[in-house]
Amino acid sequence: MDSIDIEYVESPELAEPVLIEGLPGVGHVGKLAAEHLLEELDSELVARLYADEFPPQVDIDDEGIASLTCASFHAVYTDGDGPDLLVLTGDHQASTNDGHYRLTDAILDVAEEFGSQRAFALGGVPTGELVEEYTVLGAVTAAEQKAALEDAGVEFRPDEPAGGIVGVSGLILGLGGRRGFDSVCLMGETSGYLVDPKSAQAVLEVLQEILDFEVDFGSLEDRAEEMEEVVGKIREMQDQQQAQLPTDDELRYIG
Amino acid sequence: MDSIDIEYVESPELAEPVLIEGLPGVGHVGKLAAEHLLEELDSELVARLYADEFPPQVDIDDEGIASLTCASFHAVYTDGDGPDLLVLTGDHQASTNDGHYRLTDAILDVAEEFGSQRAFALGGVPTGELVEEYTVLGAVTAAEQKAALEDAGVEFRPDEPAGGIVGVSGLILGLGGRRGFDSVCLMGETSGYLVDPKSAQAVLEVLQEILDFEVDFGSLEDRAEEMEEVVGKIREMQDQQQAQLPTDDELRYIG
Amino acid sequence: MDSIDIEYVESPELAEPVLIEGLPGVGHVGKLAAEHLLEELDSELVARLYADEFPPQVDIDDEGIASLTCASFHAVYTDGDGPDLLVLTGDHQASTNDGHYRLTDAILDVAEEFGSQRAFALGGVPTGELVEEYTVLGAVTAAEQKAALEDAGVEFRPDEPAGGIVGVSGLILGLGGRRGFDSVCLMGETSGYLVDPKSAQAVLEVLQEILDFEVDFGSLEDRAEEMEEVVGKIREMQDQQQAQLPTDDELRYIG
Amino acid sequence: MDSIDIEYVESPELAEPVLIEGLPGVGHVGKLAAEHLLEELDSELVARLYADEFPPQVDIDDEGIASLTCASFHAVYTDGDGPDLLVLTGDHQASTNDGHYRLTDAILDVAEEFGSQRAFALGGVPTGELVEEYTVLGAVTAAEQKAALEDAGVEFRPDEPAGGIVGVSGLILGLGGRRGFDSVCLMGETSGYLVDPKSAQAVLEVLQEILDFEVDFGSLEDRAEEMEEVVGKIREMQDQQQAQLPTDDELRYIG
Repeated sequence: MDSIDIEYVESPELAEPVLIEGLPGVGHVGKLAAEHLLEELDSELVARLYADEFPPQVDIDDEGIASLTCASFHAVYTDGDGPDLLVLTGDHQASTNDGHYRLTDAILDVAEEFGSQRAFALGGVPTGELVEEYTVLGAVTAAEQKAALEDAGVEFRPDEPAGGIVGVSGLILGLGGRRGFDSVCLMGETSGYLVDPKSAQAVLEVLQEILDFEVDFGSLEDRAEEMEEVVGKIREMQDQQQAQLPTDDELRYIG
Repeated sequence: MDSIDIEYVESPELAEPVLIEGLPGVGHVGKLAAEHLLEELDSELVARLYADEFPPQVDIDDEGIASLTCASFHAVYTDGDGPDLLVLTGDHQASTNDGHYRLTDAILDVAEEFGSQRAFALGGVPTGELVEEYTVLGAVTAAEQKAALEDAGVEFRPDEPAGGIVGVSGLILGLGGRRGFDSVCLMGETSGYLVDPKSAQAVLEVLQEILDFEVDFGSLEDRAEEMEEVVGKIREMQDQQQAQLPTDDELRYIG
Repeated sequence: MDSIDIEYVESPELAEPVLIEGLPGVGHVGKLAAEHLLEELDSELVARLYADEFPPQVDIDDEGIASLTCASFHAVYTDGDGPDLLVLTGDHQASTNDGHYRLTDAILDVAEEFGSQRAFALGGVPTGELVEEYTVLGAVTAAEQKAALEDAGVEFRPDEPAGGIVGVSGLILGLGGRRGFDSVCLMGETSGYLVDPKSAQAVLEVLQEILDFEVDFGSLEDRAEEMEEVVGKIREMQDQQQAQLPTDDELRYIG
Repeated sequence: MDSIDIEYVESPELAEPVLIEGLPGVGHVGKLAAEHLLEELDSELVARLYADEFPPQVDIDDEGIASLTCASFHAVYTDGDGPDLLVLTGDHQASTNDGHYRLTDAILDVAEEFGSQRAFALGGVPTGELVEEYTVLGAVTAAEQKAALEDAGVEFRPDEPAGGIVGVSGLILGLGGRRGFDSVCLMGETSGYLVDPKSAQAVLEVLQEILDFEVDFGSLEDRAEEMEEVVGKIREMQDQQQAQLPTDDELRYIG
């Protein structure tokens, strides 16, 4: 196997599709969002990307059938007047610095192969606390992209995220921009501690406005409710533990 | 030395031999099973595989003679009507992600060189607790392989092992499958905490039924008994320690 | 992208410019010093260096515009009779041993491209305690360089720094020296615990004497004052905490 | 710079010199032994080996002069009838598995360049406790080497060292043996906790008998005495600390 190996499965004619990247990251926001598009919209697997930077691993499906771990490109056809999408999903990022560069270069190669010149990297940005209002932060490679995004509710904050944007999402901008891609990163605010379907929904709501398509959020809302229950139980347990601890007053009488 | 260096020692004519991989892993199940085949059956060293992904190390034999650490291929001739075996054993997996890919590619090259188109990767799957019944889990690269394996007692469980199968065993399926190998992974259930000869025996019992050969399990049973003694002693020590701890009732009167 | 990718932005005619390296390191002394030169003197971006050894990351500017992380070369024109400067700044060193070698080789290639044959690597040397007098230590690739540096107040101590000089600064000497560069490392003493603008100023004061230029230190002194305040607050907090702890005398009566 | 770069300094005519390797390792036994040969015998620097697997570092000499870290080959001329020596010393091993293979291959290339076909890798073998009698263990690449070594007091123990021999010393045997080198590893027993000049002397005493030369051990004995003093002080401090702890009897009356 080559260091990176692209397996083309289908070759549909796509009209300047928009690359949507949703690999694992903070709060799994990008991954949840991209997978939701595949579940809800008309989609077709078009290519698999194998990389020796991914773990040496096969995944097992519900029949016990093993397949080499990979990232997948799906063509997604939306109902509205918007462009076709080329959605990248998978379970892994690269495992080394230079591996991230080679992986992202290969991803952009595939996107160009399908005629794409525009990319949205989806992800989360950690706030460190529970999020009440799901703001979506943006970063772009050229200033003229900002107005349309701001109209769709995206916020741009000076020098944020402070540590830059790392991983494949960052390089979709960094390497994509150098190749002439019109690249945008949409980052949903999220605590950073939990998988966050609500943040994924916030990101998708921006995306559907910009790219003029519509998607049903029912299943994502269901997952959000499940997460709420989990969070609720964690809080209850914490409260109980604190109730069992002696109060400051009680502590005064010990010893 | 090249990154991977194959040293062919013998060139016997083998009729479509079956590759059996048994490198170190969970409970050393695969390694124990493969080494047991070499001890009990008529075998011949046919090739050594050196790799700069292995530790920079020589092994010392019982005469004080040093030899560069390597993985070994043995031709194994069984008594029954079953195929010849090409058994891969060794003390190491690769040390990096991409190293696993290159190592497994080289292993499959050697297997093809001997005419093999079929592979069994042997290993263990951790249960996290002491195992009473030694079930053997299976994973395959194509659905039509399942029936014969299920007849031999192999279980297929949806999406298990949950984290996929990693290391050379995983790639024997993943890369082997992409090359057209008929690849199977047999995983003996094992606690994951101890070397487990019983789990290795369970895997071999499946293998001998599928590949139509017979092997004596006396020495493996002896090792299993030794392990039982070790486990027994650990339990005794744990019991004694607990006996020395004050009971909850006793604790109530302290302080 | 290549493993290392140089993007030339401007091609000014420079007369044997002196390479000044200020990448992150102990007390950020080198980075502070090099960035201060860019802020205070007449400078021009001439080249960017991208490397897959840098983190896979984009940096976000104050407009929310993303750019691939890189190291930058600026031509700096001084007022005095001294030579032009070629100042290297950035946020990262390499992430592996061999990466440092390749990165520094590329840096020296760029410097040669602009006609440079002389280099100053700026950095800090940790003392492990608060520094009162900011001595600047030196290391050179040839003994005849020492006299002029000692005249400018640089100290040379046998076998110091004891562990050698590591990272790009070290290799500017090690690889630069082997190429015929006249390489010097100037290391400002610094505690090693904090960003240290005073140490950076000490290094620059030596540099301006050797290279015959003048730079205003107002802004660096302001940052030094800010750091003093931070240090002061840390000390106060430590003092308060100690005041709240029982004294040895008080402890004697407990229990 | 290439990944490994050999700089030939002198080209003396050596008659089948014996490679002596003494890089850092357990108890620094090999390094101490090799450096002692350079100090005591008539020697000449013949080559430097630079490698991007070494730390990115310059070493500073007693004049403040920096030089790129490297391993060094010295020709050593002994007084007796024994062969010339080619002594390899340095401060580093490689930093990755494959780097060790490439580094050792390069070392053997240089040795062959000087006509060497015989090698002694010097090192220590950890016992985990203070050593009273300094036995020297041996490992060889061919059984016929053993008799002469046993005559010189070298012990061969089945399957020891249990974990094999790792690092450059191991590969001098492993890769050297595959090239036809007559390779021997001499391992002085040592606690493994401290630099051990006595163990280095034990190794050299074997070496001088086998290779028919004589070396004075005065300076090594001085270092051994210094180490004894250090060990003595550590023991005193431990004894004092224990004296300050309450005895079991005293503890019985607490609480």
